[in-house]
Amino acid sequence: MTQTILLKKRPEGKPTRSDFEFVKEDKELTINHNEMILKTLYVSVDPYLRGRMSDAKSYVEPFEVGKPIHSLVIAKVLDSKNDKFTEGDYVRGMLNWKTKQVSKGEGITKVDPSKADLSAYLGILGMTGLTAYCGLTEIGKPKKGETLVVSGAAGAVGSVVGQIGKILGLTVIGIAGTDEKVEMLKSKFGFDAGINYNTTENMKEAIAEAAPNGVDVYFDNVGGPISDAVLFNINKFSRTVNCGAIAVYNNTEQPKSVSVRPFLVKNSASMQGFIVSNFENKFPEAIKQLSTWLAEDKLTYSETIVEGFENIPQAFIDLFDGKNKGKMVVKA
Amino acid sequence: MTQTILLKKRPEGKPTRSDFEFVKEDKELTINHNEMILKTLYVSVDPYLRGRMSDAKSYVEPFEVGKPIHSLVIAKVLDSKNDKFTEGDYVRGMLNWKTKQVSKGEGITKVDPSKADLSAYLGILGMTGLTAYCGLTEIGKPKKGETLVVSGAAGAVGSVVGQIGKILGLTVIGIAGTDEKVEMLKSKFGFDAGINYNTTENMKEAIAEAAPNGVDVYFDNVGGPISDAVLFNINKFSRTVNCGAIAVYNNTEQPKSVSVRPFLVKNSASMQGFIVSNFENKFPEAIKQLSTWLAEDKLTYSETIVEGFENIPQAFIDLFDGKNKGKMVVKA
Repeated sequence: MTQTILLKKRPEGKPTRSDFEFVKEDKELTINHNEMILKTLYVSVDPYLRGRMSDAKSYVEPFEVGKPIHSLVIAKVLDSKNDKFTEGDYVRGMLNWKTKQVSKGEGITKVDPSKADLSAYLGILGMTGLTAYCGLTEIGKPKKGETLVVSGAAGAVGSVVGQIGKILGLTVIGIAGTDEKVEMLKSKFGFDAGINYNTTENMKEAIAEAAPNGVDVYFDNVGGPISDAVLFNINKFSRTVNCGAIAVYNNTEQPKSVSVRPFLVKNSASMQGFIVSNFENKFPEAIKQLSTWLAEDKLTYSETIVEGFENIPQAFIDLFDGKNKGKMVVKA
Repeated sequence: MTQTILLKKRPEGKPTRSDFEFVKEDKELTINHNEMILKTLYVSVDPYLRGRMSDAKSYVEPFEVGKPIHSLVIAKVLDSKNDKFTEGDYVRGMLNWKTKQVSKGEGITKVDPSKADLSAYLGILGMTGLTAYCGLTEIGKPKKGETLVVSGAAGAVGSVVGQIGKILGLTVIGIAGTDEKVEMLKSKFGFDAGINYNTTENMKEAIAEAAPNGVDVYFDNVGGPISDAVLFNINKFSRTVNCGAIAVYNNTEQPKSVSVRPFLVKNSASMQGFIVSNFENKFPEAIKQLSTWLAEDKLTYSETIVEGFENIPQAFIDLFDGKNKGKMVVKA
């Protein structure tokens, strides 16, 4: 039996379980020349998928209503008529939210379970690590001695960004939503300071205190009022890396914020959005560097692994309540 | 007799005449070794001066209350004990709002009245031209065939930006506040289209219509709701040049706007503020290029020349009502 998760309807505001539909099929999968059967092992759930569930203009095509959702998946090859893959291989690729599926191998790459846990290939050695590394180095252009602020710091990307900042010799301040997360930023990921935005009355002042020399690089995963508070603390020539805006993805009305423009003019400051694929030509260098740091124990990661294919929608929804620590992965 | 204009008090909101004070002195000016006496001929009044009248953190030191205001000035050397300047020279520099003053020649450069009108050295061959050229080329990175939108397009910087855009082969759309200005953008400065924001109900749609291929470069001189409307029309990898935010300089409350962050993330787009002095190393190249285009009649400029030293404060105030066409200059 194969299970598939379809987009039933486009979410309004925060996604709910009723936006998704489970379909079961009993048909045996068969393959032709060049094809293989893949069994889903781990499924990546990511905030950016919310964007694809809307039909608004964005950097990728929206998901179609009534069709399967897809994201980055680790799978095992059950059977193969494709020359490049053999039974027993572990692979990674953009695959449908299906327990089993047929693939022609396009965009599928092998991963090595002896070098890292399989789930790591969805995180620190996958999109997460690449997003952190490329966004920070290519746009943030961090320089030793500068101050880096990271929002969504306990999240998958944020925790890696902060660690890279420390490796590169910056003062690193993380913003997260619970005391437990803030503690983890310091004890596990080596941040210099952490701020709990849920218990801090005046974020603007709290950031000023934590960053007495001002903010040179802001790696922004959230994009809401927290980012407004950072704005008041940016330095001349500061760089903001706009990686995500999870705080406003679910807004049904056009979100308003403090106008950034006078701050940019006054400080000769920049803001730049990106998606990781903009830096594809940097991927080999990035993976090599991340693997080295990982092997040298300079980099650690956390992940929240939810068990059960049927829990994929809820795991995705939980992202918007900050229930994950680090990379959110579902073990199918 | 010498007249001086002091900053009497810091303006709240829009500046008024009572923020300025005129002082008269009868004392004869005398000079020592290295000094010279300068007679003010033309005074540049610019929106950025508003920022210096506040005591908020900015890219330059605020003016002091009770002290003379200064800006870029063209002057004539009346007497000199400085080896580099002789009586009769025409010079340019950051000078006090005084009818006559003593200078040691620091930061003062000669200008040639035979090559261009003296007032042009405050505009197209001065900060205005440099701001337009450096901002557009260094941050906007315009490419032939792209679409450029300019706000404050009939202003000193905007009209030059649009012309450079046309020289470089872009489609250029200007936004201005009167039908007369919009007409001038097209007839005098060669813009492809113009939009009057005062008579246009839906700016978002008007921009979409004028820029059917979307906006690749946005040169932003205004920073208010007009810029929000442009935001809805930016293309993937678009660049916004944040040159000014005159629409919000007089705000006494923190201005709010549509949140730019989700737009930047979705479009891998950038915004960057600057002041012209960031690009000092580009000035020789820029002046050479601007002079060449001017000589070739590829570039024209407009200026509003107000007569009378005593009208400097009003000319400055009028900037915020858009009363100038092109560079605002006071002939002392």
